[in-house]
Amino acid sequence: MSKTIELYQYWRSSCSWRVRWALEHKGVSYKTHSINLLKSEQTSSEYLKLNPTGCVPCLVVDGVPYGESVAIMEWLEEVFPTPSLLPRSPEERMKTRQLVGVIASGTQPLQNLSVQKYFSNDPNERKTYAQHWISKGLAVYENLVTETAGTYSVGSQLSIADLCLIPQVYNANRFNVDMSKFPTISRINATCLQREDCIKANPDQQPDSL
Amino acid sequence: MSKTIELYQYWRSSCSWRVRWALEHKGVSYKTHSINLLKSEQTSSEYLKLNPTGCVPCLVVDGVPYGESVAIMEWLEEVFPTPSLLPRSPEERMKTRQLVGVIASGTQPLQNLSVQKYFSNDPNERKTYAQHWISKGLAVYENLVTETAGTYSVGSQLSIADLCLIPQVYNANRFNVDMSKFPTISRINATCLQREDCIKANPDQQPDSL
Repeated sequence: MSKTIELYQYWRSSCSWRVRWALEHKGVSYKTHSINLLKSEQTSSEYLKLNPTGCVPCLVVDGVPYGESVAIMEWLEEVFPTPSLLPRSPEERMKTRQLVGVIASGTQPLQNLSVQKYFSNDPNERKTYAQHWISKGLAVYENLVTETAGTYSVGSQLSIADLCLIPQVYNANRFNVDMSKFPTISRINATCLQREDCIKANPDQQPDSL
Repeated sequence: MSKTIELYQYWRSSCSWRVRWALEHKGVSYKTHSINLLKSEQTSSEYLKLNPTGCVPCLVVDGVPYGESVAIMEWLEEVFPTPSLLPRSPEERMKTRQLVGVIASGTQPLQNLSVQKYFSNDPNERKTYAQHWISKGLAVYENLVTETAGTYSVGSQLSIADLCLIPQVYNANRFNVDMSKFPTISRINATCLQREDCIKANPDQQPDSL
Protein backbone atom coordinates (compact mmCIF):
# COMPACT_ATOMS: atom_id res chain seq x y z
CA MET A 1 0.00 0.00 0.00
CA SER A 2 2.15 2.87 -1.23
CA LYS A 3 -0.06 5.88 -0.72
CA THR A 4 1.21 9.38 -0.03
CA ILE A 5 -0.61 10.60 3.06
CA GLU A 6 -0.56 14.14 4.39
CA LEU A 7 -2.52 15.43 7.36
CA TYR A 8 -3.56 19.06 7.73
CA GLN A 9 -4.18 19.51 11.41
CA TYR A 10 -3.83 21.59 14.54
CA TRP A 11 -2.11 20.29 17.64
CA ARG A 12 -4.95 21.13 20.03
CA SER A 13 -7.87 20.06 17.80
CA SER A 14 -9.51 16.98 19.31
CA CYS A 15 -10.62 15.76 15.88
CA SER A 16 -7.02 16.02 14.61
CA TRP A 17 -5.87 13.91 17.56
CA ARG A 18 -8.36 11.16 16.63
CA VAL A 19 -6.81 10.86 13.17
CA ARG A 20 -3.17 11.17 14.29
CA TRP A 21 -3.82 8.38 16.78
CA ALA A 22 -5.41 6.11 14.15
CA LEU A 23 -2.42 6.69 11.85
CA GLU A 24 0.06 5.99 14.67
CA HIS A 25 -1.85 2.89 15.80
CA LYS A 26 -1.83 1.43 12.31
CA GLY A 27 1.78 2.40 11.67
CA VAL A 28 0.91 4.48 8.61
CA SER A 29 3.54 6.98 7.46
CA TYR A 30 2.25 10.52 7.13
CA LYS A 31 3.44 14.08 6.91
CA THR A 32 1.70 16.80 8.93
CA HIS A 33 0.92 20.39 8.03
CA SER A 34 -0.11 22.77 10.79
CA ILE A 35 -3.25 24.87 10.36
CA ASN A 36 -3.25 27.40 13.20
CA LEU A 37 -6.85 27.80 14.37
CA LEU A 38 -5.93 30.74 16.60
CA LYS A 39 -4.77 32.60 13.50
CA SER A 40 -7.91 31.44 11.61
CA GLU A 41 -5.77 29.70 9.01
CA GLN A 42 -8.62 27.21 8.50
CA THR A 43 -10.62 29.95 6.78
CA SER A 44 -7.83 31.10 4.45
CA SER A 45 -8.76 30.83 0.78
CA GLU A 46 -5.83 28.46 0.27
CA TYR A 47 -7.06 26.02 2.94
CA LEU A 48 -10.71 26.32 1.91
CA LYS A 49 -9.72 25.19 -1.58
CA LEU A 50 -8.35 22.02 0.01
CA ASN A 51 -11.13 21.56 2.57
CA PRO A 52 -14.30 23.62 2.06
CA THR A 53 -15.55 22.62 5.51
CA GLY A 54 -13.03 25.08 6.97
CA CYS A 55 -12.27 22.53 9.67
CA VAL A 56 -9.34 20.38 10.62
CA PRO A 57 -8.34 17.64 10.11
CA CYS A 58 -8.03 17.12 6.38
CA LEU A 59 -6.34 14.00 5.05
CA VAL A 60 -4.76 14.27 1.62
CA VAL A 61 -4.37 10.88 -0.03
CA ASP A 62 -2.31 10.86 -3.22
CA GLY A 63 -3.17 14.52 -3.66
CA VAL A 64 -6.93 14.22 -3.02
CA PRO A 65 -8.31 15.90 0.12
CA TYR A 66 -10.86 14.38 2.50
CA GLY A 67 -12.36 15.92 5.63
CA GLU A 68 -14.32 14.72 8.67
CA SER A 69 -12.38 12.66 11.20
CA VAL A 70 -14.87 9.78 11.50
CA ALA A 71 -14.91 9.30 7.72
CA ILE A 72 -11.10 9.31 7.74
CA MET A 73 -10.90 6.75 10.58
CA GLU A 74 -13.37 4.45 8.78
CA TRP A 75 -11.24 4.70 5.62
CA LEU A 76 -8.07 3.91 7.54
CA GLU A 77 -9.82 0.87 8.99
CA GLU A 78 -10.82 -0.32 5.51
CA VAL A 79 -7.48 0.30 3.82
CA PHE A 80 -5.15 -0.59 6.71
CA PRO A 81 -7.25 -3.21 8.52
CA THR A 82 -4.49 -4.42 10.85
CA PRO A 83 -4.32 -3.67 13.75
CA SER A 84 -8.07 -3.19 13.75
CA LEU A 85 -9.91 -0.35 15.43
CA LEU A 86 -13.34 -2.01 15.30
CA PRO A 87 -14.62 -5.26 16.84
CA ARG A 88 -15.62 -8.14 14.54
CA SER A 89 -19.30 -8.69 15.27
CA PRO A 90 -21.71 -6.28 13.58
CA GLU A 91 -23.53 -5.66 16.88
CA GLU A 92 -20.29 -4.79 18.73
CA ARG A 93 -19.32 -2.56 15.81
CA MET A 94 -22.69 -0.81 16.17
CA LYS A 95 -22.07 -0.33 19.92
CA THR A 96 -18.62 1.06 19.14
CA ARG A 97 -19.99 3.44 16.53
CA GLN A 98 -22.77 4.46 18.94
CA LEU A 99 -20.06 5.61 21.35
CA VAL A 100 -18.32 7.39 18.47
CA GLY A 101 -21.59 9.18 17.72
CA VAL A 102 -22.05 10.24 21.35
CA ILE A 103 -18.76 12.15 21.10
CA ALA A 104 -18.54 13.05 17.39
CA SER A 105 -22.16 14.19 16.99
CA GLY A 106 -23.42 14.62 20.55
CA THR A 107 -20.55 16.36 22.32
CA GLN A 108 -17.61 17.71 20.32
CA PRO A 109 -19.60 19.88 17.86
CA LEU A 110 -21.42 21.64 20.71
CA GLN A 111 -18.25 22.66 22.55
CA ASN A 112 -16.40 23.73 19.44
CA LEU A 113 -14.79 27.19 19.57
CA SER A 114 -16.89 28.59 16.71
CA VAL A 115 -20.08 27.49 18.49
CA GLN A 116 -18.89 28.95 21.80
CA LYS A 117 -18.15 32.24 20.01
CA TYR A 118 -21.60 32.36 18.48
CA PHE A 119 -23.10 31.70 21.92
CA SER A 120 -21.36 34.52 23.75
CA ASN A 121 -18.56 37.07 23.71
CA ASP A 122 -17.95 36.55 27.40
CA PRO A 123 -15.16 34.05 28.20
CA ASN A 124 -16.87 32.88 31.40
CA GLU A 125 -20.18 32.25 29.65
CA ARG A 126 -18.32 30.36 26.94
CA LYS A 127 -16.65 28.21 29.56
CA THR A 128 -19.97 27.44 31.27
CA TYR A 129 -21.45 26.61 27.89
CA ALA A 130 -18.64 24.20 27.01
CA GLN A 131 -18.78 22.61 30.46
CA HIS A 132 -22.53 22.05 30.11
CA TRP A 133 -22.34 20.15 26.82
CA ILE A 134 -19.16 18.24 27.64
CA SER A 135 -20.58 17.09 31.00
CA LYS A 136 -23.84 16.07 29.35
CA GLY A 137 -22.07 14.12 26.60
CA LEU A 138 -19.64 12.38 28.92
CA ALA A 139 -22.50 11.41 31.27
CA VAL A 140 -24.16 9.59 28.38
CA TYR A 141 -20.87 7.96 27.41
CA GLU A 142 -20.22 6.87 31.00
CA ASN A 143 -23.67 5.31 31.20
CA LEU A 144 -23.18 3.35 27.98
CA VAL A 145 -19.56 2.40 28.52
CA THR A 146 -20.16 0.75 31.89
CA GLU A 147 -22.02 -1.93 29.90
CA THR A 148 -19.37 -2.41 27.20
CA ALA A 149 -15.99 -1.63 28.78
CA GLY A 150 -13.13 -3.99 29.39
CA THR A 151 -9.69 -2.45 29.35
CA TYR A 152 -11.03 -0.08 26.69
CA SER A 153 -14.45 1.34 25.81
CA VAL A 154 -15.57 -1.85 24.09
CA GLY A 155 -13.94 -4.94 25.54
CA SER A 156 -10.19 -5.47 25.57
CA GLN A 157 -9.35 -3.90 22.20
CA LEU A 158 -8.63 -0.26 21.40
CA SER A 159 -11.29 1.10 19.04
CA ILE A 160 -12.37 4.27 17.28
CA ALA A 161 -14.57 4.94 20.33
CA ASP A 162 -11.46 5.39 22.48
CA LEU A 163 -9.89 7.53 19.76
CA CYS A 164 -12.85 9.90 20.11
CA LEU A 165 -13.12 9.69 23.89
CA ILE A 166 -9.61 10.53 25.05
CA PRO A 167 -9.28 13.82 23.08
CA GLN A 168 -12.71 14.79 24.45
CA VAL A 169 -11.49 14.13 28.00
CA TYR A 170 -8.49 16.36 27.24
CA ASN A 171 -10.96 19.13 26.35
CA ALA A 172 -13.02 18.37 29.46
CA ASN A 173 -9.92 18.95 31.56
CA ARG A 174 -9.17 22.21 29.73
CA PHE A 175 -12.64 23.43 30.72
CA ASN A 176 -12.36 22.11 34.30
CA VAL A 177 -15.18 19.59 33.97
CA ASP A 178 -15.51 17.51 37.14
CA MET A 179 -14.23 14.13 35.88
CA SER A 180 -14.82 12.37 39.22
CA LYS A 181 -18.40 11.79 38.02
CA PHE A 182 -17.08 9.53 35.27
CA PRO A 183 -15.02 6.73 36.87
CA THR A 184 -15.09 4.29 33.94
CA ILE A 185 -14.12 6.99 31.45
CA SER A 186 -11.35 8.15 33.79
CA ARG A 187 -9.97 4.62 34.07
CA ILE A 188 -9.97 4.12 30.28
CA ASN A 189 -8.40 7.55 29.84
CA ALA A 190 -5.55 6.73 32.23
CA THR A 191 -4.88 3.45 30.41
CA CYS A 192 -4.91 5.04 26.96
CA LEU A 193 -2.63 7.92 27.94
CA GLN A 194 0.13 5.39 28.68
CA ARG A 195 -0.01 3.83 25.22
CA GLU A 196 2.85 4.72 22.90
CA ASP A 197 0.54 5.39 19.93
CA CYS A 198 -1.57 7.74 22.06
CA ILE A 199 1.50 9.55 23.38
CA LYS A 200 2.83 10.09 19.85
CA ALA A 201 -0.53 11.56 18.81
CA ASN A 202 -0.94 13.66 21.98
CA PRO A 203 -1.30 17.42 21.38
CA ASP A 204 1.64 18.23 23.60
CA GLN A 205 3.92 16.11 21.41
CA GLN A 206 3.11 17.96 18.18
CA PRO A 207 5.66 20.24 16.53
CA ASP A 208 3.11 23.07 16.32
CA SER A 209 2.18 22.97 20.02
CA LEU A 210 2.72 26.19 21.90
CA MET B 1 -31.66 -13.10 8.62
CA SER B 2 -34.52 -13.47 11.10
CA LYS B 3 -33.96 -10.62 13.49
CA THR B 4 -36.70 -8.86 15.43
CA ILE B 5 -36.26 -5.16 14.77
CA GLU B 6 -38.06 -2.37 16.58
CA LEU B 7 -37.50 1.34 16.07
CA TYR B 8 -38.20 3.89 18.77
CA GLN B 9 -38.60 7.17 16.93
CA TYR B 10 -40.45 10.41 16.44
CA TRP B 11 -42.06 11.35 13.14
CA ARG B 12 -40.41 14.76 12.88
CA SER B 13 -36.92 13.80 14.08
CA SER B 14 -34.50 14.04 11.18
CA CYS B 15 -32.28 11.31 12.66
CA SER B 16 -35.29 8.98 12.90
CA TRP B 17 -36.04 9.62 9.23
CA ARG B 18 -32.49 8.57 8.27
CA VAL B 19 -33.00 5.17 9.89
CA ARG B 20 -36.58 4.62 8.67
CA TRP B 21 -35.35 5.34 5.15
CA ALA B 22 -32.44 2.89 5.43
CA LEU B 23 -34.84 0.20 6.69
CA GLU B 24 -37.31 0.89 3.87
CA HIS B 25 -34.56 0.97 1.24
CA LYS B 26 -33.23 -2.40 2.33
CA GLY B 27 -36.70 -3.90 2.71
CA VAL B 28 -36.16 -4.77 6.36
CA SER B 29 -39.31 -5.47 8.42
CA TYR B 30 -39.57 -3.36 11.55
CA LYS B 31 -42.09 -2.21 14.10
CA THR B 32 -42.13 1.44 15.22
CA HIS B 33 -42.78 2.90 18.65
CA SER B 34 -43.44 6.63 18.93
CA ILE B 35 -41.47 8.72 21.42
CA ASN B 36 -43.14 12.12 21.53
CA LEU B 37 -40.38 14.72 21.85
CA LEU B 38 -42.91 17.51 22.45
CA LYS B 39 -44.06 15.63 25.55
CA SER B 40 -40.40 14.96 26.51
CA GLU B 41 -41.01 11.22 26.41
CA GLN B 42 -37.33 10.78 25.45
CA THR B 43 -36.37 11.74 29.02
CA SER B 44 -38.82 9.40 30.75
CA SER B 45 -37.12 6.89 33.05
CA GLU B 46 -38.60 4.07 30.98
CA TYR B 47 -37.05 5.35 27.74
CA LEU B 48 -33.73 6.27 29.36
CA LYS B 49 -33.42 2.65 30.51
CA LEU B 50 -33.61 1.66 26.85
CA ASN B 51 -31.50 4.52 25.49
CA PRO B 52 -29.46 6.53 28.01
CA THR B 53 -28.67 9.13 25.35
CA GLY B 54 -32.23 10.42 25.75
CA CYS B 55 -32.39 10.81 21.99
CA VAL B 56 -34.27 9.19 19.16
CA PRO B 57 -33.89 6.99 17.22
CA CYS B 58 -33.15 3.80 19.10
CA LEU B 59 -33.05 0.49 17.25
CA VAL B 60 -33.84 -2.60 19.29
CA VAL B 61 -32.40 -5.74 17.70
CA ASP B 62 -33.55 -9.00 19.26
CA GLY B 63 -34.24 -7.11 22.47
CA VAL B 64 -30.92 -5.19 22.62
CA PRO B 65 -31.08 -1.39 22.20
CA TYR B 66 -28.68 0.69 20.09
CA GLY B 67 -28.68 4.46 19.60
CA GLU B 68 -27.08 6.96 17.19
CA SER B 69 -28.44 6.96 13.65
CA VAL B 70 -25.10 6.78 11.82
CA ALA B 71 -24.07 3.71 13.85
CA ILE B 72 -27.43 2.12 13.04
CA MET B 73 -27.12 2.86 9.30
CA GLU B 74 -23.60 1.38 9.23
CA TRP B 75 -24.92 -1.76 10.96
CA LEU B 76 -27.79 -2.06 8.49
CA GLU B 77 -25.26 -1.79 5.66
CA GLU B 78 -23.15 -4.58 7.18
CA VAL B 79 -26.00 -6.95 8.01
CA PHE B 80 -28.28 -6.21 5.04
CA PRO B 81 -25.71 -5.32 2.37
CA THR B 82 -28.13 -5.34 -0.58
CA PRO B 83 -29.18 -2.88 -1.87
CA SER B 84 -26.09 -1.06 -0.72
CA LEU B 85 -26.01 2.45 0.73
CA LEU B 86 -22.26 2.93 0.28
CA PRO B 87 -20.07 2.97 -2.85
CA ARG B 88 -17.50 0.20 -3.33
CA SER B 89 -14.17 2.02 -3.43
CA PRO B 90 -12.70 3.00 -0.07
CA GLU B 91 -12.06 6.55 -1.31
CA GLU B 92 -15.66 7.00 -2.50
CA ARG B 93 -16.86 5.56 0.81
CA MET B 94 -14.70 8.16 2.59
CA LYS B 95 -16.22 10.95 0.46
CA THR B 96 -19.70 9.61 1.28
CA ARG B 97 -18.94 9.45 4.98
CA GLN B 98 -17.44 12.95 4.82
CA LEU B 99 -20.81 14.20 3.59
CA VAL B 100 -22.49 12.22 6.37
CA GLY B 101 -20.21 13.96 8.87
CA VAL B 102 -21.01 17.41 7.49
CA ILE B 103 -24.66 16.81 8.38
CA ALA B 104 -24.46 14.41 11.33
CA SER B 105 -21.66 16.21 13.20
CA GLY B 106 -21.48 19.62 11.55
CA THR B 107 -25.11 20.63 11.13
CA GLN B 108 -27.86 18.60 12.79
CA PRO B 109 -26.51 18.69 16.37
CA LEU B 110 -26.24 22.48 16.29
CA GLN B 111 -29.85 23.06 15.24
CA ASN B 112 -31.30 20.47 17.60
CA LEU B 113 -34.20 21.66 19.76
CA SER B 114 -32.34 21.13 23.06
CA VAL B 115 -29.44 23.24 21.79
CA GLN B 116 -31.79 25.97 20.55
CA LYS B 117 -33.46 25.98 23.97
CA TYR B 118 -30.13 26.36 25.74
CA PHE B 119 -29.25 29.22 23.41
CA SER B 120 -32.36 31.30 24.01
CA ASN B 121 -35.91 31.39 25.37
CA ASP B 122 -36.99 33.63 22.53
CA PRO B 123 -38.56 31.77 19.56
CA ASN B 124 -37.24 34.31 17.05
CA GLU B 125 -33.69 34.06 18.37
CA ARG B 126 -33.95 30.29 18.26
CA LYS B 127 -35.07 30.45 14.65
CA THR B 128 -32.18 32.74 13.68
CA TYR B 129 -29.81 30.40 15.50
CA ALA B 130 -31.09 27.33 13.66
CA GLN B 131 -31.01 29.18 10.33
CA HIS B 132 -27.40 30.20 10.91
CA TRP B 133 -26.08 26.68 11.52
CA ILE B 134 -28.25 24.99 8.90
CA SER B 135 -27.20 27.52 6.24
CA LYS B 136 -23.56 27.14 7.20
CA GLY B 137 -23.74 23.34 7.09
CA LEU B 138 -25.62 23.17 3.81
CA ALA B 139 -23.18 25.63 2.21
CA VAL B 140 -20.34 23.24 3.02
CA TYR B 141 -22.36 20.27 1.72
CA GLU B 142 -23.23 22.15 -1.50
CA ASN B 143 -19.56 22.95 -2.07
CA LEU B 144 -18.48 19.33 -1.61
CA VAL B 145 -21.40 17.72 -3.42
CA THR B 146 -20.88 19.66 -6.65
CA GLU B 147 -17.69 17.58 -7.01
CA THR B 148 -19.25 14.20 -6.23
CA ALA B 149 -22.89 14.35 -7.34
CA GLY B 150 -24.55 12.41 -10.11
CA THR B 151 -28.23 11.70 -9.64
CA TYR B 152 -27.49 11.50 -5.92
CA SER B 153 -24.89 12.99 -3.58
CA VAL B 154 -22.20 10.55 -4.65
CA GLY B 155 -22.64 9.35 -8.22
CA SER B 156 -25.71 7.53 -9.41
CA GLN B 157 -26.43 5.46 -6.32
CA LEU B 158 -28.42 6.43 -3.23
CA SER B 159 -26.17 6.48 -0.16
CA ILE B 160 -26.18 7.22 3.54
CA ALA B 161 -25.15 10.77 2.60
CA ASP B 162 -28.54 11.31 0.92
CA LEU B 163 -30.26 9.70 3.91
CA CYS B 164 -28.71 12.41 6.08
CA LEU B 165 -29.17 15.26 3.60
CA ILE B 166 -32.87 15.08 2.77
CA PRO B 167 -34.14 15.14 6.40
CA GLN B 168 -31.81 18.11 6.97
CA VAL B 169 -33.36 19.93 3.99
CA TYR B 170 -36.78 19.22 5.52
CA ASN B 171 -35.59 21.02 8.67
CA ALA B 172 -34.10 23.82 6.58
CA ASN B 173 -37.52 24.39 5.04
CA ARG B 174 -39.17 24.36 8.48
CA PHE B 175 -36.82 27.19 9.49
CA ASN B 176 -37.28 29.08 6.20
CA VAL B 177 -33.66 28.73 5.11
CA ASP B 178 -33.14 30.18 1.61
CA MET B 179 -32.59 26.99 -0.38
CA SER B 180 -32.02 28.84 -3.68
CA LYS B 181 -28.36 29.15 -2.60
CA PHE B 182 -28.01 25.37 -2.85
CA PRO B 183 -28.97 24.27 -6.38
CA THR B 184 -27.27 20.86 -6.35
CA ILE B 185 -28.74 19.96 -2.98
CA SER B 186 -32.16 21.14 -4.16
CA ARG B 187 -31.96 18.95 -7.25
CA ILE B 188 -30.94 15.87 -5.25
CA ASN B 189 -33.67 16.63 -2.74
CA ALA B 190 -36.35 16.80 -5.44
CA THR B 191 -35.18 13.48 -6.89
CA CYS B 192 -35.10 11.72 -3.53
CA LEU B 193 -38.54 12.97 -2.46
CA GLN B 194 -40.04 11.06 -5.40
CA ARG B 195 -38.55 7.72 -4.37
CA GLU B 196 -40.96 5.24 -2.84
CA ASP B 197 -38.59 4.34 0.02
CA CYS B 198 -38.17 8.02 0.87
CA ILE B 199 -41.91 8.64 0.77
CA LYS B 200 -42.58 5.71 3.11
CA ALA B 201 -40.01 7.09 5.56
CA ASN B 202 -41.21 10.72 5.23
CA PRO B 203 -42.32 12.33 8.50
CA ASP B 204 -45.75 13.17 7.10
CA GLN B 205 -46.40 9.48 6.41
CA GLN B 206 -45.79 8.36 9.99
CA PRO B 207 -48.67 7.19 12.21
CA ASP B 208 -47.56 9.56 14.99
CA SER B 209 -47.45 12.69 12.76
CA LEU B 210 -49.68 15.51 13.92
